[in-house]
Amino acid sequence: MNVLGIDIGGTKTIVAVADSDGHIIALERIDTPREQGPSAVLSAIESAVRALLTHYALRITSVGIGCGGPLDRERGIILVAPNLPGWDNLDLVHYFRNAFGAPVVIDNDVNLMALGEARSGAGVGVDHMAYFNIGTGVGGGIVISGKLYRGCGNAGEFGHQIILPDGPDCLCGKRGCLESLVSGTSIARRAREYLADHPRSSILKLAGSLDKVTAEVVARAAFDGDDLARRIWLETGEYLGLGVANVVNILNPRMVIIGGGVAQVGDLLLDPVRRTVRERAMTQLADDVRIVPGVLGDQAGIIGAIRLAVERD
Amino acid sequence: MNVLGIDIGGTKTIVAVADSDGHIIALERIDTPREQGPSAVLSAIESAVRALLTHYALRITSVGIGCGGPLDRERGIILVAPNLPGWDNLDLVHYFRNAFGAPVVIDNDVNLMALGEARSGAGVGVDHMAYFNIGTGVGGGIVISGKLYRGCGNAGEFGHQIILPDGPDCLCGKRGCLESLVSGTSIARRAREYLADHPRSSILKLAGSLDKVTAEVVARAAFDGDDLARRIWLETGEYLGLGVANVVNILNPRMVIIGGGVAQVGDLLLDPVRRTVRERAMTQLADDVRIVPGVLGDQAGIIGAIRLAVERD
Repeated sequence: MNVLGIDIGGTKTIVAVADSDGHIIALERIDTPREQGPSAVLSAIESAVRALLTHYALRITSVGIGCGGPLDRERGIILVAPNLPGWDNLDLVHYFRNAFGAPVVIDNDVNLMALGEARSGAGVGVDHMAYFNIGTGVGGGIVISGKLYRGCGNAGEFGHQIILPDGPDCLCGKRGCLESLVSGTSIARRAREYLADHPRSSILKLAGSLDKVTAEVVARAAFDGDDLARRIWLETGEYLGLGVANVVNILNPRMVIIGGGVAQVGDLLLDPVRRTVRERAMTQLADDVRIVPGVLGDQAGIIGAIRLAVERD
Repeated sequence: MNVLGIDIGGTKTIVAVADSDGHIIALERIDTPREQGPSAVLSAIESAVRALLTHYALRITSVGIGCGGPLDRERGIILVAPNLPGWDNLDLVHYFRNAFGAPVVIDNDVNLMALGEARSGAGVGVDHMAYFNIGTGVGGGIVISGKLYRGCGNAGEFGHQIILPDGPDCLCGKRGCLESLVSGTSIARRAREYLADHPRSSILKLAGSLDKVTAEVVARAAFDGDDLARRIWLETGEYLGLGVANVVNILNPRMVIIGGGVAQVGDLLLDPVRRTVRERAMTQLADDVRIVPGVLGDQAGIIGAIRLAVERD
């Protein structure tokens, strides 16, 4: 009795087969051919899975899929897929149930990262926790009493809480959202803006040109001791700290896990987050929470997708 | 088999006895003699309860108590009581268990208002809901799958989410909290500030003098058509809308209930709240939520305390 997990991302997709306890037997990464539209992506995923199943002579009894949201879990469709053009209202469950003849459960990709960290990562044994994913965008997931909390279906949009009411435009169409202030995209944008007044910063040298400035370059410059780069991370951590403080005040979790590509800078980001939460959240609630980095890296989502397939929840 | 509910407030305390289904048999309001310190308050409450029990010839098998928090439910003590000087670390459970020989459960007063509205008010039959109490301060309560969600014990501090990072000082010791922008205290403070530039506003006339300006006076002036007063309510509703939008984005509830004395102005406050949530929360999540006024008035807390005693949760 094996299960299949699929973690569909805007650039990479991971598929993995696991045993009924969720231990991974085989895992494959493919590029997401998103420019070719949904049917090309779906059949690329199907082919990758079939190759795995044939090679390892496995059969599957259940499928868990993570994808950008918001989505309608009951109807099994993606409502809006910000990273996947043409995927709005796509019936993902129907496709893969037909393809593999097994029940399919879907969820928001960041919810599944939260589930992955809860079951096999930094959050093992923690009853109430909140997960922030800081990457190109900013997402969230909530685990309550060990289970994913979804509200009406799409809870945990931590990235779109309003941190600065008059802040920058956000990709969601609103403004001043946490995402518009701490995502990788925002870090790169702010770095480019600030460079005009800081021509001696090493960020530009490391990037090569202004259009090649990324959050990763700003991280490397900060580790090299560049003042502007360090200031950008400090500012980012303080904004993120406000968002974490709000989630702490609202959910009173025992743990906040910060994952995602941008979070890999570690304490450069987490130190100002922790300090800001201590300064700005209610004292008793700040005392209750540990703020820790995710430990599953870019496998958090696929591990969560497999747990979804195992738990069928 | 009857139960006792106690709702301890900074100025008024309500005690009530109910049957095992939670229907109120007898209810009594007393002034909270808080200036005389905790033992005077506790014995005033005990006397009021004994008078009720004797008069109606009732016995009780369980007690539910609501009080300002944060508190430690497991140890049965109040950690910090902002409205009750001298109550920090008070062992409330011990006192009333000894007094009445019955098990005692305590909870945050606003949590119990949320429970009251969930069981007998605007939230009957709603699975996931968030309750905002807008009074002298601003509190919150979260109901998930029909049960109070408490996190590590004190979740739902909606009033202390940060709305304006550089905003006014808050009584909690931080700044820019929702409470510092929308509480009755804040409305009165802003009205006094704005009056300097608006000498013709009817607020001052209605109040009699600057130190008698209250949120209630600002409400009366607004209903009379006073421009400044209407602007203050609009501003208050927009700030509150940001706080509600954040809770909607984080919890994706099916309903947000706005209760408390300040909320009694109705649509003067709720219209800008609803508009702001629609403008600032994620579209799908804003579509999921109904924002409604509480219906239990100042009895929400005592009804919740009785439910706590019945459900012993």
